[in-house]
Amino acid sequence: MDERIREHAETLVDWSARIESGDDVVLSVAEDAHDLAVAVAAVLGDRGANVVTTYASEEISRAYLRAHDGDFETPAHELALYENADSVLFLGGGRNTFAAADVDGQTRQDAARASQPIKEARMDTDWVSTVHPTRSLAQQAGMSYEAYQEFAYEAILRDWESLAGEMSQLKSLLDDGSEVRLVSAETDLTMSIEGRSAVNSAASVAYDSHNLPSGEVFTAPYDAEGEVVFDVPMTISGTRVRDVRLRFEAGRVVDFSADTGAETIADLLDTDEGARRLGELGIGMNRGIDRVTDNILFDEKMGDTVHLALGRAYDACLPEGKNGNDSAVHVDLITDVSEDSRLEIDGDVVQRNGRFRWEDGFEA
Amino acid sequence: MDERIREHAETLVDWSARIESGDDVVLSVAEDAHDLAVAVAAVLGDRGANVVTTYASEEISRAYLRAHDGDFETPAHELALYENADSVLFLGGGRNTFAAADVDGQTRQDAARASQPIKEARMDTDWVSTVHPTRSLAQQAGMSYEAYQEFAYEAILRDWESLAGEMSQLKSLLDDGSEVRLVSAETDLTMSIEGRSAVNSAASVAYDSHNLPSGEVFTAPYDAEGEVVFDVPMTISGTRVRDVRLRFEAGRVVDFSADTGAETIADLLDTDEGARRLGELGIGMNRGIDRVTDNILFDEKMGDTVHLALGRAYDACLPEGKNGNDSAVHVDLITDVSEDSRLEIDGDVVQRNGRFRWEDGFEA
Repeated sequence: MDERIREHAETLVDWSARIESGDDVVLSVAEDAHDLAVAVAAVLGDRGANVVTTYASEEISRAYLRAHDGDFETPAHELALYENADSVLFLGGGRNTFAAADVDGQTRQDAARASQPIKEARMDTDWVSTVHPTRSLAQQAGMSYEAYQEFAYEAILRDWESLAGEMSQLKSLLDDGSEVRLVSAETDLTMSIEGRSAVNSAASVAYDSHNLPSGEVFTAPYDAEGEVVFDVPMTISGTRVRDVRLRFEAGRVVDFSADTGAETIADLLDTDEGARRLGELGIGMNRGIDRVTDNILFDEKMGDTVHLALGRAYDACLPEGKNGNDSAVHVDLITDVSEDSRLEIDGDVVQRNGRFRWEDGFEA
Repeated sequence: MDERIREHAETLVDWSARIESGDDVVLSVAEDAHDLAVAVAAVLGDRGANVVTTYASEEISRAYLRAHDGDFETPAHELALYENADSVLFLGGGRNTFAAADVDGQTRQDAARASQPIKEARMDTDWVSTVHPTRSLAQQAGMSYEAYQEFAYEAILRDWESLAGEMSQLKSLLDDGSEVRLVSAETDLTMSIEGRSAVNSAASVAYDSHNLPSGEVFTAPYDAEGEVVFDVPMTISGTRVRDVRLRFEAGRVVDFSADTGAETIADLLDTDEGARRLGELGIGMNRGIDRVTDNILFDEKMGDTVHLALGRAYDACLPEGKNGNDSAVHVDLITDVSEDSRLEIDGDVVQRNGRFRWEDGFEA
């Protein structure tokens, strides 16, 4: 077995999910994530955890959803499985990122609504999402398989403890701050974050972080004023989107444009009232991710980028008992901050042209 | 999609498992059974059933079991899943029939003991086992992939209703009979079946039958006297076995030999006291199965064969509240009855040289 797969499995089980002897684990395996699943099973066996292996196939979901007619139910057996689980490990990596592209949106939404209690039960566990680098994901990234594997492991197999230490500095600044300003060539956006808590997303449930790789610090802004351009290309709901511009007044998007995919952005903004407001401000700090691969799990953590999400805010950023922005969606948009840019907290520059104030080469 | 896969899926869901709208189904998918799983998911969606898809990978089990040290537990989440399920559909078809050959027997037994409550919960559902014809199974059968597919679908896609009608005649004779005698060149064995019920195993839970394909009538003899030769070659616990001879006195094996695999038979007989006694007498009636493929799901249902199992008897054959032969094992051995042979019930010949008394060409 490729030693990198073994290391990936150990990182997932030990660092990310913190699995202990006796834990009841659900191992969700995508169509082409078999090799990673074998490695994870060996680590789970060694740690004395119990495992149920589920098969997450987009082709199977597509066949089921297209054939289904009428109301969806919340299956009692599926709910029982997750209500009794301590951890869920999602091993992504299918055979075709568009495998379910011809399932209509209404069916998808109806099914999602019926399975909401199952999703909530899963979110109540120590869940972690990761991906096994597959040919399909390499294709999505426009890369050869070998090069994509190198890219993915460079992002996943980091010194997470050390990165967590570095990220804690930014978390402290955001926790103590009340206003963030992002400035670059065509962007000047001010966001209020007073009273919000930042998450040091260090790829571990111990840090309220559920993605491997991770490597970002994020918080939930509650107000926004100004204009922002997202120059990192993305795929949203199966459509390519480029150079999205949003103008905020009193926290709300009042104007927008996009060089490509404007209709998708219009649909997104019209989802509900919360879709016009920010749910997240995230700062990418994983320098193992050095290029865009059209996969949000990686793209939003890329070093020298900042992302904002329209829609739902994460509870982890909110004061106990307080509600953040609510919406059916949470869509991230990314902007490159490696050049001609600065990030200020309460007027102090904390990042300029991608360099943080605690790094060599930072110019105040 | 191959039309045969679609028909297989429909037969499984409708004829075999009798799945109805709202049923909570577990779909267990082996490594290479993906295409059948897609077809089954479409049928389940159309029927309005709910589905959880599990991944049954021998490679994953092997990795887990070999790494595991210490006691096994009964996982609460797995038990909850099956206790809340109405049906379990097992789609066999891995990539290597020896994928877990290097897991030691003790570990396997310890794991099986801990998961006994889960097995029981599964057996309490309307479960059905089938296989998707894979290259690995073709190899086990010594056949090309294409030829194996034809073989498998010939066995699976039968007129089950019609076969059930024919098999009911043999069931009646066995239910009413008290003694069965099997005679061929080197075999003369008499078994008591008084008070036992035969199962018309017509590949449907409606007939207490949980295999697709099926096509056998079986009962649970409680006494045996005489000698029997099993001339159909088999693989038992990974070892090839040929020409096993057993001599019974007062229901118990008192002497045995085998041209190949004698040690495996010796180990089997020494498992426990029940392993020396018969748990099943089965008569193969699926004429779609015309050759041995070294897969018990098919071999034991082959037309013109009779099989006997050492070990545990099935409850379905026993009078309400009565116990049958008990053992940790249930191992089938098969004998060819196409030539020089006869099967008698209470002295009446019901089958001679493979022909039943209700068939053309039968000679009383």
